[in-house]
Amino acid sequence: MNLNDCPLCLTDGGHCLYRGDHLRIIAPQELEFPGLIRVVWHQHLAEMTDLIPTQRSHLMMTVCIVEDIIRKVMQPDKINLAAFGNVVPHLHWHIIPRWHNDPYFPNPIWGAKQREVIEVQQEWRKNQEKQLMSAIEEYFVSHPQVS
Amino acid sequence: MNLNDCPLCLTDGGHCLYRGDHLRIIAPQELEFPGLIRVVWHQHLAEMTDLIPTQRSHLMMTVCIVEDIIRKVMQPDKINLAAFGNVVPHLHWHIIPRWHNDPYFPNPIWGAKQREVIEVQQEWRKNQEKQLMSAIEEYFVSHPQVS
Repeated sequence: MNLNDCPLCLTDGGHCLYRGDHLRIIAPQELEFPGLIRVVWHQHLAEMTDLIPTQRSHLMMTVCIVEDIIRKVMQPDKINLAAFGNVVPHLHWHIIPRWHNDPYFPNPIWGAKQREVIEVQQEWRKNQEKQLMSAIEEYFVSHPQVS
Repeated sequence: MNLNDCPLCLTDGGHCLYRGDHLRIIAPQELEFPGLIRVVWHQHLAEMTDLIPTQRSHLMMTVCIVEDIIRKVMQPDKINLAAFGNVVPHLHWHIIPRWHNDPYFPNPIWGAKQREVIEVQQEWRKNQEKQLMSAIEEYFVSHPQVS
């Protein structure tokens, strides 16, 4: 996979909440995973150690800012962080709010499904996701140094 | 779960390759996942954003050093990084070398198994794991500033 066929080179990968010089913050708005946010490095590199240390710090600082906003807005029981890239080897982080009663808990969201989610709860969390998206956009408008 | 019943407070969580003031590096030596290494924060905290920024940097710098050594010694096709803590909410990172022909690829190791591993290959990777463990120990002996 290279620049010509990588989906994260060809597209943003979801609704873009912030676009910096080196990375972007994406809300994929996946129905099953309300509040899941991705931080995508613009350049087509596969691993954290393909970045120089200052770039790694910038990326992880951004991941932590997103984690912090997710915790404040969505008040999950746990945060999951992951960078895999087995299917799309273009460096990107998943920041995932988890709840004890979400469909996959305590498994990672890539594991076996444990239960169906209650519809009213799903609705509530999808509403929270909208607030989350606004909160992330607002943060990065008012903190332009993180670019 | 608290200090009294948390397995990462009560035990190291595997063979300890390095013990710093704030974190330790563990080789769980799991048969199915040769080369999987964990970096465990000593203090019982759940999330990256429960740490102060200098602690986050120290932890991720250590994760990246381990990733770098894994890539050099085991030459995997991909590295997977994850911090979940759904079962044990005590901050720890998984650094996982992945190969196109490993049992779960391209799924995360928490996903559905895709194939059985070839025994001779497994044996070879378990040998590489021993070299990896030595390399990590040696690195941290000769770089005591990372503690």
